[in-house]
Amino acid sequence: MRQLHFASDNNAGVAPPVLDAVVAEAARTDAAYGWDSTSQRMEEALADVFERPVEVFCVPTGTAANALCLAATNPVWGGVVCHERAHIVVDECAAPTALGGGLTLLPVPAEHGRLEAGAVAAFLDARHDTGVHSVPATSISITQATEAGTRYAPDDIAALADLAHGRGMALHMDGARFANAVAAAGSTPAELSWRSGVDIMSLGATKGGALAAEAIVAFDESRREPLERLRKRSGHLLSKQRFAAAQFNAWFESGRWLGLADHANQQAQRLAEGLTAIGVPLAHPVEANIVFADLEPAAIDNARAAGAQFYMDDPVANPDGTRRIRLVTSWSTEPDDVDALLAALSAMM
Amino acid sequence: MRQLHFASDNNAGVAPPVLDAVVAEAARTDAAYGWDSTSQRMEEALADVFERPVEVFCVPTGTAANALCLAATNPVWGGVVCHERAHIVVDECAAPTALGGGLTLLPVPAEHGRLEAGAVAAFLDARHDTGVHSVPATSISITQATEAGTRYAPDDIAALADLAHGRGMALHMDGARFANAVAAAGSTPAELSWRSGVDIMSLGATKGGALAAEAIVAFDESRREPLERLRKRSGHLLSKQRFAAAQFNAWFESGRWLGLADHANQQAQRLAEGLTAIGVPLAHPVEANIVFADLEPAAIDNARAAGAQFYMDDPVANPDGTRRIRLVTSWSTEPDDVDALLAALSAMM
Amino acid sequence: MRQLHFASDNNAGVAPPVLDAVVAEAARTDAAYGWDSTSQRMEEALADVFERPVEVFCVPTGTAANALCLAATNPVWGGVVCHERAHIVVDECAAPTALGGGLTLLPVPAEHGRLEAGAVAAFLDARHDTGVHSVPATSISITQATEAGTRYAPDDIAALADLAHGRGMALHMDGARFANAVAAAGSTPAELSWRSGVDIMSLGATKGGALAAEAIVAFDESRREPLERLRKRSGHLLSKQRFAAAQFNAWFESGRWLGLADHANQQAQRLAEGLTAIGVPLAHPVEANIVFADLEPAAIDNARAAGAQFYMDDPVANPDGTRRIRLVTSWSTEPDDVDALLAALSAMM
Amino acid sequence: MRQLHFASDNNAGVAPPVLDAVVAEAARTDAAYGWDSTSQRMEEALADVFERPVEVFCVPTGTAANALCLAATNPVWGGVVCHERAHIVVDECAAPTALGGGLTLLPVPAEHGRLEAGAVAAFLDARHDTGVHSVPATSISITQATEAGTRYAPDDIAALADLAHGRGMALHMDGARFANAVAAAGSTPAELSWRSGVDIMSLGATKGGALAAEAIVAFDESRREPLERLRKRSGHLLSKQRFAAAQFNAWFESGRWLGLADHANQQAQRLAEGLTAIGVPLAHPVEANIVFADLEPAAIDNARAAGAQFYMDDPVANPDGTRRIRLVTSWSTEPDDVDALLAALSAMM
Repeated sequence: MRQLHFASDNNAGVAPPVLDAVVAEAARTDAAYGWDSTSQRMEEALADVFERPVEVFCVPTGTAANALCLAATNPVWGGVVCHERAHIVVDECAAPTALGGGLTLLPVPAEHGRLEAGAVAAFLDARHDTGVHSVPATSISITQATEAGTRYAPDDIAALADLAHGRGMALHMDGARFANAVAAAGSTPAELSWRSGVDIMSLGATKGGALAAEAIVAFDESRREPLERLRKRSGHLLSKQRFAAAQFNAWFESGRWLGLADHANQQAQRLAEGLTAIGVPLAHPVEANIVFADLEPAAIDNARAAGAQFYMDDPVANPDGTRRIRLVTSWSTEPDDVDALLAALSAMM
Repeated sequence: MRQLHFASDNNAGVAPPVLDAVVAEAARTDAAYGWDSTSQRMEEALADVFERPVEVFCVPTGTAANALCLAATNPVWGGVVCHERAHIVVDECAAPTALGGGLTLLPVPAEHGRLEAGAVAAFLDARHDTGVHSVPATSISITQATEAGTRYAPDDIAALADLAHGRGMALHMDGARFANAVAAAGSTPAELSWRSGVDIMSLGATKGGALAAEAIVAFDESRREPLERLRKRSGHLLSKQRFAAAQFNAWFESGRWLGLADHANQQAQRLAEGLTAIGVPLAHPVEANIVFADLEPAAIDNARAAGAQFYMDDPVANPDGTRRIRLVTSWSTEPDDVDALLAALSAMM
Repeated sequence: MRQLHFASDNNAGVAPPVLDAVVAEAARTDAAYGWDSTSQRMEEALADVFERPVEVFCVPTGTAANALCLAATNPVWGGVVCHERAHIVVDECAAPTALGGGLTLLPVPAEHGRLEAGAVAAFLDARHDTGVHSVPATSISITQATEAGTRYAPDDIAALADLAHGRGMALHMDGARFANAVAAAGSTPAELSWRSGVDIMSLGATKGGALAAEAIVAFDESRREPLERLRKRSGHLLSKQRFAAAQFNAWFESGRWLGLADHANQQAQRLAEGLTAIGVPLAHPVEANIVFADLEPAAIDNARAAGAQFYMDDPVANPDGTRRIRLVTSWSTEPDDVDALLAALSAMM
Repeated sequence: MRQLHFASDNNAGVAPPVLDAVVAEAARTDAAYGWDSTSQRMEEALADVFERPVEVFCVPTGTAANALCLAATNPVWGGVVCHERAHIVVDECAAPTALGGGLTLLPVPAEHGRLEAGAVAAFLDARHDTGVHSVPATSISITQATEAGTRYAPDDIAALADLAHGRGMALHMDGARFANAVAAAGSTPAELSWRSGVDIMSLGATKGGALAAEAIVAFDESRREPLERLRKRSGHLLSKQRFAAAQFNAWFESGRWLGLADHANQQAQRLAEGLTAIGVPLAHPVEANIVFADLEPAAIDNARAAGAQFYMDDPVANPDGTRRIRLVTSWSTEPDDVDALLAALSAMM
């Protein structure tokens, strides 16, 4: 039976041009641990993408990128304000705490996966500061695109950055799906990051068409030594780093990363429109490549019987008996896959 | 100028059959985080290699493999007896300590990079056990092939395992170059590991022809949950793990891993014989793919001028004014490279 | 001006018989680090109090006791379910995370500071278990008497213990004010701990009349080595431990600890009754030695002007404009202090 | 049988004036966690002792003081150069590593327990700096008086400080027996610390006559917040800190601390002279309150039979069959005790 892959953009293969770059790199011999020419070109590529010099550190996973970003920007006694459903809270088994020397995550609820500066300020004000006894909030972490499939506009980010910096805190962005956000936003990478006040970010290519290529991007060169050391001692410095760099270089080349992301975003739009057309309510605005839908259990069973793969968003049912499911599209999702999924669902409605 | 690569087997590219497997995997869509069919086949491949079921955990780096092996086999207050020049001591920026919750490395000197059971027993007996005040030695870690390019015979390992187990300690093996040891030894992987008492090991394919494929191999299923959790929370669970698994599968197929390692070993032999022929003293027996030679500074300069790349083994000169250099061969080292290096050196002698 | 001390039972001095024991101990010479006769007698005293052998470990602070209890009963990747206002959440600057190798606190709201088994079960069921990606709940921690000044009955504890053990979790009790709970409960120390399923507890004498005497009490001898090691390497093994032991011995002697706690509890009752009489609403049932009252800002100012010392329970006002304050009585609180505080408050009403 | 206590200065009781201060403090009610008047006076007392403002943090143990000093002055990836027999290496179960987030101790051998700047420079130069792969040496830690019972002169310290600062490293001093060093040296506390370049130190009163009073003394106010936070989250902020402060205040009053230390030092001199008179070789110069002697096993047995308590310095015998023992005197050692010990030993010679 044909499988309809909507479980995760991590399930996709590798985009052909990215794969070609790996193949080309494989025929070369060059220095290990980032002292190679391909890694050098990656730094230039990122400087080009962000319109300024940046500190870049390849790491093998998005969890490593997030955890090391936070380890480098918070004291071990610090606290990271983040969405209660952020990846760092629910999907990393406390990696930021583990690699950050025991830092604390401070989850806050917010609609559609998106923190809002006013609400975060209220959260901070309502915390009981008992001096040395309580964990101080030392940074804010946001995800772009969010885990709910929504986006932050540059102004949203700037408001959070102003709040953070005004209280001596840093602003981190988990950009595992930054490409999807940029492709959909009509804003530049710079506008969606440092120009809006982001201090450090994780930038992922793996979900967007690479094999395994994630990066820490820091907009402050004082973070270089901590990041180099923390990456090494947590086992995240790749010996043959040039293969990760090669993936990034091919991904960024001629805006390819945005083309791949745009394809994924469009499939999510196609899916969202189709669901709406058959009367399935969407849980969040669809602003990137993830769709959340509330479905009858029978419809879920039918879709699975038709080969559809996806995750439940919650372990418990909604009050009305429906279940919320998460559908993720990728650079490799075919319109036919979307249509086949919609057909399986509408057969039940 | 042609480069003569003897700095590290990490500088080589990817062996074609391993690369082919990556390319084939790239065209597929499958589950993330190891729930895919390729990862399943990897477990079978390793069970075949080791002639028994094993617990296998892919990780992206050898440092991660070592650190997580030690984290899973030592309490946070434990101590790891190891060679004073072991990779975990000198080349991992204390990653075992960092990921092991603060465990302590207990380095001991030993000739030719090889711990010997009697000497380790004497080391342990001479430590002042002040009860709860002193760090207890809770495991022994050895490297196979060693950082000095030598090997442990099965009996050497068994003696260390008996010592360790008799004192309630575990035995870890850093097998970043296990392939080279097996290829050279005329012993089976099983004989060089669990049959001789190894409890857990790091097994690396990256130096041996892969792109980035390292594994933790545990011979005790009780370590499954700690390893799964520790790997995830340190950021070492790859989302597209199937690409690492694909590399391992191609590498192990039909004994390919041993063929690649044997090639590297033979180039080291060629190099060692050539050095001896021109009167250059070797610092250690050449039993795998690394050669240590004591050279006049002028010879070193000449080799570098001829395009040779290699590392100094020590920051200071030998008492006789020579410098010790480390020369590493790989699956991709050409006999011509070896001969060119020898020619550059003998021109000076 | 006379000070009216209601800020904390930590502000009191030392109960005379406990002080006498310190003075007597000071004249002796004996072994350090717990190998002395006074520490031996402490173990016997605790076995007597709990009607069974226990593993006892003196530590200098309650934060150390809590953090080490949790470090010894949770894997580093584990999660501790606790009240959102628990001392370990709001007043220890993440010490359990720091000393527990990165474990995670999982705060849940509950009325009157008291977790309830059914609600905890619902909390656990509603967490999204994403396998290795999410932090597993590995223990429950409760406080007795609670931070809200309430108590758990033996049946409440047993229900939580059954829940915990049924899911492979441990049950920890923060007994910084265990004496107050026992004195008020009409239950034995055993009934309020191991007989109801508590696995490990912190037991504090400092608030109850000692100078600095806290203990970890474990009801499972397998925890001895982890606790000894974790205590030492976190710097919590006192060299002259016998002085802490001497305090415990005098405190437990002839039920003195319960007499001191009963006095504190009675002053809290006197205060609660007085507040009620003058129309001040109490926020929680007064079941130990802490009273929470909602007061007009002017009344608070007046009390402070009269020399009263106490903390605000929240940084923000109640919706009706009142502020919630916390009033703590101790073994040294005089009925006159209570009456003076009430007089200052009623003058305003 | 009368006991002759030479095992440790930790076995002594409490000097009467220090005890009196505790008794006086016990009758008072005052703020917790260091916000009390006694703690305020302690800061003044220390400023007086050191002839300048200092940052002072009471902690309950010397291990905590050392570990937190090092945690506050080294990055988690740093390394601490120290004597191979330093207390932090052999007697703290890796507490500096545990509380320092995984930092590494770098032990070096040196005669008589005393590091020497030239030898430390040579050690540093001989380490193989492999960049991010190796642990950088980020501080030097010395003990004053040393674990061998010797002392550093101000010039010795200044040479080490110059070396450290010249390489961007910090200098820590473990002053568990700083009083003994000052009393014996004819130098001021300032000369033996910050005036010679010490950046941060542990200062212990417990061995010198207190019950439990240790402090971190930092000579740089930028370390205040890290130390406050690290102390709290490791459980080392005492709730009734004023009792530790009271001990310090009485100890420092009118030079009492030096008088107590001088007594201990004199008993060590009496012991050393007596041993020399009966032909027992001393292992180290006796410059404080510790004596190391090489004795025949029969003499050791005889001394123990006479009630003498002391520790062996090594688990193995000297080459000549003698055993090295450690004899520690304290403020409470009586000349009669010394003479009785000498009598027991000379009876055997």
